[in-house]
Amino acid sequence: MIEEKLAELGIILPEPAAPVASYVPTVEADGLLYISGQLPFVDGKVITGKIGDSRTLADGQLAARACAIMLIAQMKKALGGHLDRVERIVKLGVFVASTPEFTDQPEAANGASDLMEAVFGDAGKHARAAVSVPVLPRDATVEIDAVVKLKPR
Amino acid sequence: MIEEKLAELGIILPEPAAPVASYVPTVEADGLLYISGQLPFVDGKVITGKIGDSRTLADGQLAARACAIMLIAQMKKALGGHLDRVERIVKLGVFVASTPEFTDQPEAANGASDLMEAVFGDAGKHARAAVSVPVLPRDATVEIDAVVKLKPR
Amino acid sequence: MIEEKLAELGIILPEPAAPVASYVPTVEADGLLYISGQLPFVDGKVITGKIGDSRTLADGQLAARACAIMLIAQMKKALGGHLDRVERIVKLGVFVASTPEFTDQPEAANGASDLMEAVFGDAGKHARAAVSVPVLPRDATVEIDAVVKLKPR
Repeated sequence: MIEEKLAELGIILPEPAAPVASYVPTVEADGLLYISGQLPFVDGKVITGKIGDSRTLADGQLAARACAIMLIAQMKKALGGHLDRVERIVKLGVFVASTPEFTDQPEAANGASDLMEAVFGDAGKHARAAVSVPVLPRDATVEIDAVVKLKPR
Repeated sequence: MIEEKLAELGIILPEPAAPVASYVPTVEADGLLYISGQLPFVDGKVITGKIGDSRTLADGQLAARACAIMLIAQMKKALGGHLDRVERIVKLGVFVASTPEFTDQPEAANGASDLMEAVFGDAGKHARAAVSVPVLPRDATVEIDAVVKLKPR
Repeated sequence: MIEEKLAELGIILPEPAAPVASYVPTVEADGLLYISGQLPFVDGKVITGKIGDSRTLADGQLAARACAIMLIAQMKKALGGHLDRVERIVKLGVFVASTPEFTDQPEAANGASDLMEAVFGDAGKHARAAVSVPVLPRDATVEIDAVVKLKPR
């Protein structure tokens, strides 16, 4: 059903990105899935640059959306290929690379939040914190981590 | 009882701020309440500016306190108007907008931590991470998110 | 057993750092231990300075390792002197103080991730987010907080 919604939205989940270092993409603990910070891959390349410098708010929204799609790809992999066990997107932590003048982090982060709601409906409505940082891994424009509640097996 | 303590401290909870974007203020999952990052509203206006630039440490403490009051307002709304189900403030994530020279994030964040302990007593003692960021939504001076343990219904 | 592994790695746990402000080092909630952001103490002194400025990537890795050792010291104290109840390192939140040009946060954070795996084996494999920040408390080079799953008492 979630897969149908993804298809309907024209979203093809990418190969989940391998961790760029010595950790794992997801850990399940007590019915919660903790997902590592995901970078905004589009066609296998990371969207780079800071908002206010080489990137615009619209770029940031696209980057946030790409992070959200990668979060969903990680969920699917962690759950053995099915998204049915996703009960609720609980929390997104959104880090936006920007200059110190940029104050529309919420609007940038909406690129991810809107996608979660479009894909999961009410189950996609999450708590969120969105802040700026001076720079991100691989010079990424956005990084997002997540906590997701799972249905019992 | 918590309401009495708030009154004793002269704290009037504000109307919980609506999310500035497409997400929800709180999500309950497995007895934990995840609260979205809250901005420092005082009399309906956000305290803005960076510590080390236009703001002092004392301003930052007031801003952190205002974020904590908004977190409590969000708890109250999420819990149907009563704070009795708050079992423990588990974790605060404190983001301080500052110049790269400011190193007293802990003292700024105490504006929130001290308030939580004043209001909830031992139940208000929490784990915490406090870091600086270059800028926050709406140019806010501080943003704080939280995880709160609830008593069973 | 974990203690033997620490000895084998030549790691002597430091006295757990007291909170630098009004909060507590750890809170246990529903089988999860939330640990406050830890600074990189070596021989009782904080490793200070930003990567890209006065610090190198190698310094950052050492600082991340020192934060991880302090996280373990906090676990041990919270668990009454024994690390046997650690079931899984669930999540690390890694904040790296750097200039806006530094993009190897994952490699810096590996100083902590590699140590967790060396000490706890598969149980040390965690989800992670690593971002840069302009500055940290006490001018620390790295700060790391954690969520750890505990075995039932």
